[in-house]
Amino acid sequence: MIEEPRGPGRFCGDRAGVGVVLPLQDTPSDPEASLDALVALVAGGMERVNAMILSRTGSDVTMIPEVANHLISSGGKRLRPILTLATAALSGYDRSADGDVKLAASVEFMHTATLLHDDVVDESDMRRGKVAARIKWGNEASVLVGDFLLGQAFKMMVEVGSLRALDILSSAASVIAEGEVMQLTAARSTETTEDEYLAVIRAKTAELFAAACEVGPVLAERPKSEIAACRSYGMNLGIAFQLVDDALDYGGTSADLGKNVGDDFREGKITLPVVLSFRRGSDEERAFWRRTLERQEIEEPRDLDAAIAIMRRHRALEDTIERARHYGAMAKDALALFPNAPMKQALLEAVDFCVARAR
Amino acid sequence: MIEEPRGPGRFCGDRAGVGVVLPLQDTPSDPEASLDALVALVAGGMERVNAMILSRTGSDVTMIPEVANHLISSGGKRLRPILTLATAALSGYDRSADGDVKLAASVEFMHTATLLHDDVVDESDMRRGKVAARIKWGNEASVLVGDFLLGQAFKMMVEVGSLRALDILSSAASVIAEGEVMQLTAARSTETTEDEYLAVIRAKTAELFAAACEVGPVLAERPKSEIAACRSYGMNLGIAFQLVDDALDYGGTSADLGKNVGDDFREGKITLPVVLSFRRGSDEERAFWRRTLERQEIEEPRDLDAAIAIMRRHRALEDTIERARHYGAMAKDALALFPNAPMKQALLEAVDFCVARAR
Repeated sequence: MIEEPRGPGRFCGDRAGVGVVLPLQDTPSDPEASLDALVALVAGGMERVNAMILSRTGSDVTMIPEVANHLISSGGKRLRPILTLATAALSGYDRSADGDVKLAASVEFMHTATLLHDDVVDESDMRRGKVAARIKWGNEASVLVGDFLLGQAFKMMVEVGSLRALDILSSAASVIAEGEVMQLTAARSTETTEDEYLAVIRAKTAELFAAACEVGPVLAERPKSEIAACRSYGMNLGIAFQLVDDALDYGGTSADLGKNVGDDFREGKITLPVVLSFRRGSDEERAFWRRTLERQEIEEPRDLDAAIAIMRRHRALEDTIERARHYGAMAKDALALFPNAPMKQALLEAVDFCVARAR
Repeated sequence: MIEEPRGPGRFCGDRAGVGVVLPLQDTPSDPEASLDALVALVAGGMERVNAMILSRTGSDVTMIPEVANHLISSGGKRLRPILTLATAALSGYDRSADGDVKLAASVEFMHTATLLHDDVVDESDMRRGKVAARIKWGNEASVLVGDFLLGQAFKMMVEVGSLRALDILSSAASVIAEGEVMQLTAARSTETTEDEYLAVIRAKTAELFAAACEVGPVLAERPKSEIAACRSYGMNLGIAFQLVDDALDYGGTSADLGKNVGDDFREGKITLPVVLSFRRGSDEERAFWRRTLERQEIEEPRDLDAAIAIMRRHRALEDTIERARHYGAMAKDALALFPNAPMKQALLEAVDFCVARAR
């Protein structure tokens, strides 16, 4: 899911002629930021998470590991489980108990289950640069293997034995599904407000980031203020992450994105670049959004090019990134009460990395 | 899901000409058995379960209660939550804590989530005599509302605070999904053995019955032997229940079944009546099953009539019920170590009822 940052100031379409140059504002975030420091700090734990993931997708029913591993092994950066390990370590969790590893693996399973179900819901053909599981094995397998992974996620959580962590992650499971349904219904309209849109991505994306970060200090039995700080870091990072994703969908290249550019457009998804363009646009432009996104009458490649041109005219992609930067700043401030340490620095740099990948 | 028992010795098709008369063997089970005693004994608890179900399907996202209640309010007899309340009471659980009510509601939510996902997987048009949710709201909503209910189920379980009950129910969630995938793959073949078929229904149906019955004595902190006894009662009752359902699919009437007669046939599901007919049949009959169930080349109503005629020839429906009676007897024996009491009597009668609804 996380891409390598591209060169500064570029924002390229996947076909000649749709290159979008984003003149970036001055920003305190580091354009050279990377995930390397964070990845290095949790490398030992992630090895055990990966082994756990492999062993818990095992089943005598051979289709289950096949489908699960198709997606799991397709090279997501596993940001969510990394965050669980990192916040547990930041909170001084005693690693001998392996609770962080099991919760991190649970978080990744919840995420994978969501992706499998999303592909069915969105009728996607590609995921992470590979053909979607539902194309290869059918919608049935995607639904059921997703259910299996959710069950396994809860089993691992139960093994950890923290009712508080269980409460956080099971609540997140409901909230995520609620967010997806919201996206399906109310948010299908081009008249969606920015606030309504934020409510959707808080639920469908940021909630899992928040839960992944909250269970770290919960495991370590830290005080309420630190738990709230980690949750806030995750929530705001998750919002920033999704907003950057939304912008990339209109500006990345297919190889970089691991999905097709314009997927959101083709699926009629109302994302922030659309919300901003619609509000700032002319009557004619609004008619364009209604025709393409609400009535799904799309002529390719002409309409995607036109959509990107309208977004450029109204600086919708730049401002989406600007909003992401705002939530990124909130994520960084949330960690202020933790003393300086390499893990804190690495978590701060991860925020910059997530925002910088838009360029 | 549970139907009123019909008159003894009858087994009617839904169209003139496909009436099947089942000459029933002598049996110790009571043909007049009903669920009334069990329902009466748990009536107070079920009122609270129903209120809990209603409140926990609530969401600001209005589509969620709509879809959930379409299915939940469509008149299933709620046998699974009844079993949780009944086994908790049988084990002397102190009702003041409400743990049984929350676990019972969780079990029903897990069941409902499975039904919503099953309809998508099976591409069913009807469920409990109503149009399936996926027809009314789409596959997307069925997948996502199912996920929401699963999340809510786990939240309620966490509130109860029994890690052991959480372990049982989260394991069941995985096993159920595994069973569904098994049915999707290996079990698509007409050469499925009876043992393979049993493995599928143990996982996809009986496991939830077993878990629903196991958490009762777990809540009451009863000794291992009683917990195992209740689990065994549920497992065998679940197997009997599914076998009777399989037979009804070729012999009930549409109004009685709450689904279309022949649904399993149309969906190419290999159930025990097919397994028995295929093994006992001629080469010509085997070619019929391969054409209709494996290659899905079905001409209606001719082929459904032919399928039922072959089953009659080989006593496949009678013997499926006979097998159900066998598992029913095991379920009853499992409760032998409990002292005689109205609740035990009611649980024994529930077994007879489940078997008797085939007539």
